[in-house]
Amino acid sequence: MFPKLELEAQSDRPIYRQLHECIRKLIGSGALRKGERLPATRDLAGQLGLNRTTVSAAYALLEAEGLVLGHVGRGSFVLSEPRTSVSGLRWDRLLPASDALSAPAPAPSGALSFATSRPSEELFPMGDVRLSCQEVLAGPNAASILQLGSPGGYPPLRHYLLEEARREGVARSGDDVVITNGCQQALDLLQRVLVRPGDTVLVEDPVYPGLKNLFLRAGAQLAGVPVGPDGIDLEALERLLERGPARLLVVTPNFQNPTGATLPAAARRSVLRLARSAGLVVVENDAYGELRYEGTPLVSLKQLDETGDTVLVRSFSKLTFPGLRVGWVTAPQALASRLADAKQLADLHTDQLSQALLLRFAVSGRLDSHRARIRAAGAERPRAVLEACRRCLPPGTTFTRPEGGMNLWVRLPEPLDAAELLGRAQRAGAAYLPGKYFAVSRHDPGALRLSFAGLAPEQIRAGLAILGEVFSSELARARLERFESAPAMV
Amino acid sequence: MFPKLELEAQSDRPIYRQLHECIRKLIGSGALRKGERLPATRDLAGQLGLNRTTVSAAYALLEAEGLVLGHVGRGSFVLSEPRTSVSGLRWDRLLPASDALSAPAPAPSGALSFATSRPSEELFPMGDVRLSCQEVLAGPNAASILQLGSPGGYPPLRHYLLEEARREGVARSGDDVVITNGCQQALDLLQRVLVRPGDTVLVEDPVYPGLKNLFLRAGAQLAGVPVGPDGIDLEALERLLERGPARLLVVTPNFQNPTGATLPAAARRSVLRLARSAGLVVVENDAYGELRYEGTPLVSLKQLDETGDTVLVRSFSKLTFPGLRVGWVTAPQALASRLADAKQLADLHTDQLSQALLLRFAVSGRLDSHRARIRAAGAERPRAVLEACRRCLPPGTTFTRPEGGMNLWVRLPEPLDAAELLGRAQRAGAAYLPGKYFAVSRHDPGALRLSFAGLAPEQIRAGLAILGEVFSSELARARLERFESAPAMV
Repeated sequence: MFPKLELEAQSDRPIYRQLHECIRKLIGSGALRKGERLPATRDLAGQLGLNRTTVSAAYALLEAEGLVLGHVGRGSFVLSEPRTSVSGLRWDRLLPASDALSAPAPAPSGALSFATSRPSEELFPMGDVRLSCQEVLAGPNAASILQLGSPGGYPPLRHYLLEEARREGVARSGDDVVITNGCQQALDLLQRVLVRPGDTVLVEDPVYPGLKNLFLRAGAQLAGVPVGPDGIDLEALERLLERGPARLLVVTPNFQNPTGATLPAAARRSVLRLARSAGLVVVENDAYGELRYEGTPLVSLKQLDETGDTVLVRSFSKLTFPGLRVGWVTAPQALASRLADAKQLADLHTDQLSQALLLRFAVSGRLDSHRARIRAAGAERPRAVLEACRRCLPPGTTFTRPEGGMNLWVRLPEPLDAAELLGRAQRAGAAYLPGKYFAVSRHDPGALRLSFAGLAPEQIRAGLAILGEVFSSELARARLERFESAPAMV
Repeated sequence: MFPKLELEAQSDRPIYRQLHECIRKLIGSGALRKGERLPATRDLAGQLGLNRTTVSAAYALLEAEGLVLGHVGRGSFVLSEPRTSVSGLRWDRLLPASDALSAPAPAPSGALSFATSRPSEELFPMGDVRLSCQEVLAGPNAASILQLGSPGGYPPLRHYLLEEARREGVARSGDDVVITNGCQQALDLLQRVLVRPGDTVLVEDPVYPGLKNLFLRAGAQLAGVPVGPDGIDLEALERLLERGPARLLVVTPNFQNPTGATLPAAARRSVLRLARSAGLVVVENDAYGELRYEGTPLVSLKQLDETGDTVLVRSFSKLTFPGLRVGWVTAPQALASRLADAKQLADLHTDQLSQALLLRFAVSGRLDSHRARIRAAGAERPRAVLEACRRCLPPGTTFTRPEGGMNLWVRLPEPLDAAELLGRAQRAGAAYLPGKYFAVSRHDPGALRLSFAGLAPEQIRAGLAILGEVFSSELARARLERFESAPAMV
């Protein structure tokens, strides 16, 4: 039986705080001991003739102090004694449980890392960057660039991007551009404006962790649309759309991260047709589109879209410099204006020095030179990685053949587990990101992503030699073990 | 009676899509007309022998297409006929209603604007900025600054800020620093990590719109703690805390925006005592702390806090350049690590060129020179604004006397309404932000904010002469009208 509690109905102190104090004292005096269960709120409320929310409020205070731990469906348990010294907040209780997979331990320095999708610093045209920056800060707008700006973006850059998009045919008269801190923030703002907890969001499966975790954190229901060598599986998309209403489809038609897959032109039309009949918002994630190393550029979803409703997300980060956080959304005005509102609440506006610098880099023609150079030098890398994959990885391994971008998807033969082998690969001097970080609705333990753009061709070859050796030796060991553990046929 | 619907239980097409099609046809054929009410989901489900969620899903599709409009508690009404041409999304239906007060029309160009809390461009040390930027881009880290960075911030800047905070006594061994895009993003990340829909958040009343709208958008219950000439009202805070548990208190001890009020040292201790006994997280918003023009600096809450739990938010934006978006949070490690996770999902990391530039600006001693210059030149502005307020504003007007920061709070005598008078003031050539944008739990129609830091002293004097004239003439008119409309005593 729970000890008797003395509450004063006439007191100035609210009842829930009196109750909190009483229970706190019972814990302090040892009358309630660690591990003991408090009465259910309903029972205690009944016993004391109180409203149940009063009891809940008292329990919430005890929990915030770390004296009590609540388990949904199991009740509240005494956790510890009140500290007699000045008691600080119990951050472990205040912070929600972390839901994301923790990142793998970083590779030892000096390891050849295929783990991050980023460009090679060696290809940064530092002279052109210095010149562009100098011109911006010597120019007539220098002081106003350092002054508070506009949520939609630095106006000269917004106008430039909108003009370019019109020239290319991706923006029409009803569209507008909103500048963001790269694609990641563009997706975050779209989530804030368009997605409510419980909404279904369709994403590619596998997809990069930043996209997946963003929508999960927002409380969305993720449904994975499988990605094959030719991009998302249209039949699977159709089946998912028939299963129930969805809010958003995020699709990467060019060089998808992590698979490197490209969606053929006909499939792009089908995606739009399916989305249109389902009333679905299509977000075209085109961070990598400019990094095509071979084959013919394909027309974007935004351009193909008869209704003009597709939301196009692009960025300078992959083509130029990811340390400058500048991306942008091209979207119908009604949506763009809400995105700008959300942007203002998120961080007022994007850094203006980087916006001005990238604009100068573009209009001076330096971006064109850089693009040409990146495409030429960049093309050596997928060639090197494909050639090395063929040569080094054990038989039975499959991998995609990207025509651009920064990533390639490898599937090791059974029973290899890419996550289990990472530690060994890192100790041997090479790193990658295992497939489990990219999994949405299905997971292949043998899958992994190789991000090749940040490494020089000779590093790619050396890194794959290491990985090939680790995978092959493990495969030989596993097969030997399987052979040896097979029961004798008697 | 609702027309009969033909649904095929054996079909491959899910029932909710068949139902959607049927109703769509009924609307298209005119069998259901504009303005007509659809049956309640419960009734139609009963009539057709379906699950109620099936009917809701069909209605949701109709609503997404803009064919039907749902009113909570009143039902769903036919809105329009299906378009026969390719039908686009109805963004007006997809986007949630905007909850923020729309910003006032911008002042005509050339108007003397007291509407924005920002520094004066004339005080930007452009030579020092150029030099700092040049040194950064000529330095050995230039390429790595342009490369993908770390969610917690550019490591050399993080270390510098943490060292400074330790030296000053605001950070202890258990604290860490996370770099954000200014204070606005710091508050947004805190909201993401600590606040759940329905949580009570205590904020100052009045408070600047960016803070208020941020927490409202997150679904928090805002409770306003009134701010007087000496900062927040401690008795009101105590009463609010007794009313029920709250999650967070955001308090600006120095030169609060919009009032300019400063919280005395003794009151700072009381805030901590109250917060500690209520298990409340205290966020110390200190964007303006370095801009003290007179009097003695007061010790920060973070420094006074015996438990070290106070979360301190600071920024370079107000002291230096708001166009470079760099602020930071100093917080216990458990919280800092979650803020860095949230930062990664929000936008990967803060722009690195600006982080490196501001670090160079600081370690080169240029920040110290700039601070000294800003404090000297800045001090002329509050003097000018106070003197002009005394001279120009109509008798009965009250205003705060800030010792620093950028803002001053004016209360016009009755029956003047600051929001109603804004248009006239703008036409006369001066602008301000009416009090309604800052109101949380109480609103004074006569209140308005004057942001003085962006204007030169002679502009301040000219602007207040205009405002004084507009307010005085309106006051004379209103009093005359009141006199004339008083009924004769018979």
